[in-house]
Amino acid sequence: MTDMKGPTMRTYASVPFPDVTITGAFWHERLEVVLTRTIPSQLKMLEKHDIRGSIKLPKPVPPLTIPRRKGGFTVQMFWDSDIGKWIEAASYALRHRRDAAIEAEVEAMIDDLEAAQAEDGYLNCFYQQREPENRWTNLRDNHEMYNAGHLLEGAVAYYQATGKDRFLRVMERNMDHIARTFGRGEGQRPGYPGHQEIELALIRAFHATGQQKFLDLATYFIDERGSREPEHYFDTEAKARGDDPADYFFAASGMYEYSQSHLPVREQTKVVGHAVRAMYMYAAMADLAAEHGDAALKAACETLWADVIERRMYVTGGFGPSEHNEGFTADYDLPNDTAYCETCASVAMVFWAARMLNLDLDGQYADLLELALYNNSLAGLSRDGESYFYDNKLDSDGSHHRWAWHMCPCCTMNVSRLVASVAGYFYGLAETEIAVHLYGGSETRLPVAGGHVTLTETSDYPWNGAVRIAVAPEGCGDFTLSLRIPGWCEGASARVNGQAVPMTVERGYLKIARSWSEGDVVELDLPMEARRSYAHPAVRADIGRVALRRGPLVYCAEERDQKAPVHSLRLPREAALSARHVPDLIGGVTVIEAEARAARAEGWGPDLYRPAPPEEAPSPLLAVPYYAWCNRGANPMLVWLRE
Amino acid sequence: MTDMKGPTMRTYASVPFPDVTITGAFWHERLEVVLTRTIPSQLKMLEKHDIRGSIKLPKPVPPLTIPRRKGGFTVQMFWDSDIGKWIEAASYALRHRRDAAIEAEVEAMIDDLEAAQAEDGYLNCFYQQREPENRWTNLRDNHEMYNAGHLLEGAVAYYQATGKDRFLRVMERNMDHIARTFGRGEGQRPGYPGHQEIELALIRAFHATGQQKFLDLATYFIDERGSREPEHYFDTEAKARGDDPADYFFAASGMYEYSQSHLPVREQTKVVGHAVRAMYMYAAMADLAAEHGDAALKAACETLWADVIERRMYVTGGFGPSEHNEGFTADYDLPNDTAYCETCASVAMVFWAARMLNLDLDGQYADLLELALYNNSLAGLSRDGESYFYDNKLDSDGSHHRWAWHMCPCCTMNVSRLVASVAGYFYGLAETEIAVHLYGGSETRLPVAGGHVTLTETSDYPWNGAVRIAVAPEGCGDFTLSLRIPGWCEGASARVNGQAVPMTVERGYLKIARSWSEGDVVELDLPMEARRSYAHPAVRADIGRVALRRGPLVYCAEERDQKAPVHSLRLPREAALSARHVPDLIGGVTVIEAEARAARAEGWGPDLYRPAPPEEAPSPLLAVPYYAWCNRGANPMLVWLRE
Repeated sequence: MTDMKGPTMRTYASVPFPDVTITGAFWHERLEVVLTRTIPSQLKMLEKHDIRGSIKLPKPVPPLTIPRRKGGFTVQMFWDSDIGKWIEAASYALRHRRDAAIEAEVEAMIDDLEAAQAEDGYLNCFYQQREPENRWTNLRDNHEMYNAGHLLEGAVAYYQATGKDRFLRVMERNMDHIARTFGRGEGQRPGYPGHQEIELALIRAFHATGQQKFLDLATYFIDERGSREPEHYFDTEAKARGDDPADYFFAASGMYEYSQSHLPVREQTKVVGHAVRAMYMYAAMADLAAEHGDAALKAACETLWADVIERRMYVTGGFGPSEHNEGFTADYDLPNDTAYCETCASVAMVFWAARMLNLDLDGQYADLLELALYNNSLAGLSRDGESYFYDNKLDSDGSHHRWAWHMCPCCTMNVSRLVASVAGYFYGLAETEIAVHLYGGSETRLPVAGGHVTLTETSDYPWNGAVRIAVAPEGCGDFTLSLRIPGWCEGASARVNGQAVPMTVERGYLKIARSWSEGDVVELDLPMEARRSYAHPAVRADIGRVALRRGPLVYCAEERDQKAPVHSLRLPREAALSARHVPDLIGGVTVIEAEARAARAEGWGPDLYRPAPPEEAPSPLLAVPYYAWCNRGANPMLVWLRE
Repeated sequence: MTDMKGPTMRTYASVPFPDVTITGAFWHERLEVVLTRTIPSQLKMLEKHDIRGSIKLPKPVPPLTIPRRKGGFTVQMFWDSDIGKWIEAASYALRHRRDAAIEAEVEAMIDDLEAAQAEDGYLNCFYQQREPENRWTNLRDNHEMYNAGHLLEGAVAYYQATGKDRFLRVMERNMDHIARTFGRGEGQRPGYPGHQEIELALIRAFHATGQQKFLDLATYFIDERGSREPEHYFDTEAKARGDDPADYFFAASGMYEYSQSHLPVREQTKVVGHAVRAMYMYAAMADLAAEHGDAALKAACETLWADVIERRMYVTGGFGPSEHNEGFTADYDLPNDTAYCETCASVAMVFWAARMLNLDLDGQYADLLELALYNNSLAGLSRDGESYFYDNKLDSDGSHHRWAWHMCPCCTMNVSRLVASVAGYFYGLAETEIAVHLYGGSETRLPVAGGHVTLTETSDYPWNGAVRIAVAPEGCGDFTLSLRIPGWCEGASARVNGQAVPMTVERGYLKIARSWSEGDVVELDLPMEARRSYAHPAVRADIGRVALRRGPLVYCAEERDQKAPVHSLRLPREAALSARHVPDLIGGVTVIEAEARAARAEGWGPDLYRPAPPEEAPSPLLAVPYYAWCNRGANPMLVWLRE
C-alpha cells in the first residue's frame, strides 16, 4: 500500500547523542541528576512496586496488585514497557559512563526476559503468566505490541551502548514472531497495535542493524492502520472475543479516533484521540515518509502538524487537554486548570518534531521541539530528579504537585530517557551541511564534506542568547553551517571571526556557507527579551490573559514569590517586564519581574458577591520558568495572567 | 442528647401551598407545565426505565439494568426514592386539580408497595428482591433510609392531598420498624442514614399527623450522627460486613465528611461533602432546633449557613462545585466550566432556607431561597417541562445541554415537586403577623390575630417590582404585614392607600403594623435595575469578571444572541446596562443589553500564540435569565463575563 514516489526524502540525519558532549551548565546539571539520581531511584521504584519482579514469571502467579477494570484491563499489563524504558534510559547512562552495577542489573533483566520468552518468540510477561490462552486477542486495549516496542527500544539502546546483542536477539525473535503472526499474507491476521509505539521502535532497530525486516514490519503497521477491508480489525477481534464492538469504552468519544485508527493514516487530517499514541505514530510516519520517499505520508504529517500547532497546543508545549481520553478534544479547547498535558505527550512531540526536522529542515519543527523540551517535558521531573508530574496544569490552586511515582509510571521513564539522550537533538547532518538545532554548550565532531569538523559551542543558553561556536575542520571542503534562528527571537545577528554575516535566514536557519578554517569562530547573538504572548481569541481559557516568555522558556507565577494571591494579580498591558538572573533560586534561574496590580481582598467584607468590584493595589510580580515550578513545595501557580 | 434549652423557637409557620393560589403569569406558566407535561412524562419515563416495574417484586428476579460498581453499589438501589418523589409531585398536582387517572396510578403503586412490605414493616424493593439477607448492613452507601424517607414524603403528600391514609400507614409501619431497629436502646443498633433525607421526611410526617414518634426518630438520627461512642457506626458496620473501613471510596477525600457524619452535627462548622446530603440535613436541623428550642442546633445551623453563603455559593444559587463528591471542596473554589451545581442541591437549599426563615425571620434566608429557586433550581427544567439539567454549569462551550432523563433521575422529580409546591414558599405566618417572602401574583386567606385576612397580591414579578397587595380582613384585630425588601433592591418604597409608609426595615422586612380594614391596599415598589455583580477576589474563577443581575434573576449570555463568540466578549465597566422585555423570546423574558467589545479573530492568522493581543471591536451584548438558557438548542453560554 505504501505510496512510493521517489527516493528517500531524508535530507538530515540526527546526530546521535554519544557523538555530542553536553558541556553547558543547564543541561549538564539535568543530565547529572538523571544519571546519578533518577535512573537509580527508578530502579528502586520498579522493585518496590513489583514491576521488576513481574518479569520473573513465578509459579504460583501472585495476585494482581492493580485490580482489573471492567473488560479485564489493568495498567499492570504495561509493566514490560516500564522495564524496557528503564533499560533504555539506563543504556543511555552507560553511554555517558559505563557502570558495572547498572550493566549487571540490565543483564539480570535480560536473563529473566530470555527465560520468559516462548518457543515461538512470543514475549509478554503479563499474558504468559496469567492468561497465555488469550495472547493477541485484544490488540485494541491490552498493549502487547506497545510493550514489545518499548522492550525493543531498550534492546536497541543497550546494544548501542554496550555492543552486547543478546537482548536485541531476544527482541528480534519477538519481532519475527509478530511479523509471522500479523500481516496480509496467508494465515496471518491483519492486526496492528492499539497503542502505537512499536512502529518507531522498529525503525530504530532498522537504523541500528540495517535489517530491512524491521522497516517492513513498521511499514505494514502504518499502512494497515485504519483499514476497513473488509472490516476494522478491532471490530473483528472484539467479535472473536465474543464482545460487542459498540461496548468499547471510547465508543462514545469518536470510537477508534482514540487510537488514531478511525481512518487510514494518509487520510487523517485532524489530530485526535490519545495524545501519546498520536505523537508516537506521527513520529513513525515521518520516519517512514523519509525512508520510502512517501510524499502522501509526508503530506499527512504536515497536515497533522499544522492542525496540532494551530489549534491544540498549549503555550507550554503541552498536548492533550482532557483526562478522559488522555488526549485531544475540540479545536482551541485548552483549559488551564484541568489541563492534562501528559508529560509523555510532550516527550513524544520531541520525537515527532525531531523526525520532521530530518525530513525537512524548517525552524518551525525545531521551535516546537525546543518548546516541548524546555517547558512541558522538563516540568515533568523535579529538581532533585526523584518526583514527577504526570499531568502538567497551567493553573493550579495549590493542590497539584509532583508524585514520587505513579500507578502508571510511563511518564517517569519517558522524561529520564529524554534527558539522558537530549544531546541527540542538538545537531542535524547532511552531506555538506551541519544544522545546529539547539544551543546550550556542546561539543561534537562530525563527518561532513569528505572530512570531519569539530564544533565547540559555548553559551549560557537558555539564560542568554550569546552563542559562540568554534569551528575546527579536518580535511573537509566547503560546507554550510546552518544555525537555527529561533522563532521567538527578534533582531538576531551573527559574526564570523568578528565580521558581521548577512542574515540570510531560510525557514528559520541562518545558512553560513564557506570554506571553513581552523580557528574560525562564529558568534551568534539571539536577543532574549522578556516578552508577552497572547492566545488566539478562540481559546476560551486564555482570553484577556497574557503569558510571559523569554527565549525558549515559558514562565509562570508561583504564589510563594508574590505578595498577593497569584490569581488576584493583573499585569497591565503597559507594565514593563524586566529579567534578572537569580543564581540561588531553584538552582539558578532568570526571573521576569513587573509591576502588577492585585485585586485586594482586604476591606471586601464577608459577602461573596457585591455590586462593586474589588479595589486594586500595586503588587510586584515575579515569574519563574514553568519547568522549575513546584520545586519549593506545592503552591498556587498560574501561567496565563490576567491583563 | 438533645440540648433542650427552652420552648419552641419556631416563630413563623410556612403557609402550605394549598392555602395559596398562584395567579401571577410567571409561576402560573411553570406550574401548568409541571402539572400537565412534566409529571405525566415522568411517569412514562419511570415505566420506560423499569423503575415503575421495580416495585412489583417479580420472581424470578430480573437482571440489573444498571451494573453494580465495585463494592456492590448501583444507582438502581435508589429507585424506591424515585417512586416516592413521583408520588409526592403527583400528590401536589392532585391538590391543584383532582385527577382520577393520576390517583389510580398512585393507588396501584401503593398496592405494589403494600404487597412488597415485609411482615416486620421493612420495605425496600431492591433489597427485598435481590438480597434480603443484607438488609441494614450498609447504611453508609446503599440508601435504604434515603429511599424510606422519600416514600414517607410521598405518603404524607398523598395523605394531605386526598385524605387517604393507606400509604401513610404502610410507611408508618416502616418507620416503626426502623425505630425498633435503630437507636441506643437494648438490642438496637446505633445507626443512621448514609444519605440524609429521612429526617426531614419524619418531621413532615410529625407535622402532618402530630405523632411524636416521627419527631423522636428524626431527633435520634440527628443527635446520633457522627458519634464515636464507642466507634463511628459506619466503621462498625463495615467491619461487620468484613470490609476494611479504610477502603471507603471517599476515604481519601475527608472520609465521613462526604456524608457529614465526621462530627456530631452540633460541632460542625464547615459545609463539606455531598451537597444534597448536607442541605437535607441542615433543613432537618433547622426544623428540630425550632421544635425543641435547641439553641445549640440553631447556632450550628447559623454557623453552617454563614460558611456556605460566604465561601461556597455560586452567584446562580448553585452549590457543590465538584463532580467527584457531588459536593463541596475548598473555600472559594467555584469553577464555572466544571461547576457541578446539582439541581437537587439548589432545591435542597430552598428547603433549608425556608426552614431557617421559619426559625428566624431574616431576609438573608429569603434572599437565598429566592436566588436558588429562580436561578439554579429553575434552570434544571426545560421550558417544555420534559428535559432536565442534572448539573448546572456557568460556562459552557456548547456541549452542555439538558437530558430527557438521567441514569440517576433524582433531579427530575426534585424540580417537579418544588415547582408543584412553590406557592408554599410565599408566606410565613405568626400569631399577629404575616410575612410575605415571595412576590409574583398570589392569593391567600390566612388566620391571624383572632380572625382571617385575605391577601391578593398582584405583580409582574420577577420582571417588574411594582407589587400591589389588597388586604381584606375578617374579624381580626391589629396585625403586622411584613413585606420582604429583597437584599438586591435599592430604593424600595411603599404606600398604604396611597400614603407613603416609613421604610422601617427590620432584617430585610418592612413591618407595617396597623389596624387593617377592608379595601386597604399596600403598594410596594421594588426598583429593578439591571446591575453588575462581582465575586470576592478569592474566587479564582471569577476574578476580572462580572455577572449581570436584575431583581431575583441572574443573567447569562448565550452565543446565539450575540454577534461574536460569547467568550470573546468583554463588558467594559463603563458600559451602560439596559433592560427590555421581549414577549416572544423564550416565552417572554426581560433581557439585559449593553455595548460590549469582542476580541476579533478576524485578521489574527493561523498562529495559536502571538506577541500582540487580538484587536477589539464593539459588539452588542444580549443577556437572558440563566434559568431560561438552553431552550433554543445547545450553544456556548457564559455567566461571568470579562470586564
